[in-house]
Amino acid sequence: MNRRAIDFAEKFGLFDDRWRPRVIAELNDYQLKIVKMQGDFVWHSHADTDEAFIVIDGELRIDFRDGSVTIGAGQLYVVPRGVEHKPFAANETRVLLIEPRGVVNTGDAGGDLTAEKDLWI
Amino acid sequence: MNRRAIDFAEKFGLFDDRWRPRVIAELNDYQLKIVKMQGDFVWHSHADTDEAFIVIDGELRIDFRDGSVTIGAGQLYVVPRGVEHKPFAANETRVLLIEPRGVVNTGDAGGDLTAEKDLWI
Repeated sequence: MNRRAIDFAEKFGLFDDRWRPRVIAELNDYQLKIVKMQGDFVWHSHADTDEAFIVIDGELRIDFRDGSVTIGAGQLYVVPRGVEHKPFAANETRVLLIEPRGVVNTGDAGGDLTAEKDLWI
Repeated sequence: MNRRAIDFAEKFGLFDDRWRPRVIAELNDYQLKIVKMQGDFVWHSHADTDEAFIVIDGELRIDFRDGSVTIGAGQLYVVPRGVEHKPFAANETRVLLIEPRGVVNTGDAGGDLTAEKDLWI
């Protein structure tokens, strides 16, 4: 039986909305999600988990209360649990997120940009 | 305070041996590791964990007892726990692994290709 790998470009081609992560794979109780980011997200934090951002294409800036990090294509950053952060992307940016199953994108903040969990693609 | 993202190309430039994963980041009790693969690895399995392979550059084939999967650059595959597998790469292939802290690369098989755990770069 031949298996098929999951192709990031193919999956990103299936949707166009921003800030709405799609699950593409699970690894034990963790999920790998892809999301298109553009513009300003909301300040939020995740009390119970770190969160990994891998930029596939574009450039993502994450602001912290005391600074920022800029993540380009082929780069990675892990935001530690409990740290307030606000993602921003000037242009459409394609990001792979790694985090435990059940994490809400807006963390403790809620609001209009809150996406449903477990949206597979 | 400005943070610095982790750059895959920069990290891959720091070593040249094959089949010896380096940890580049941790996410809770999970590790993100990079490894250069070339040639045949050994048949093995991990009884307690799934294992995610993301190919950054090159092409990786993973053989199973009943088939195989080919993973190109920008593609992902998760090998389920307990499933025997044998990675193979005809040419140098750069791979990002995601798995819990403490996983041994050769799983239940051991042998000469067994790498030390928690080798950071």
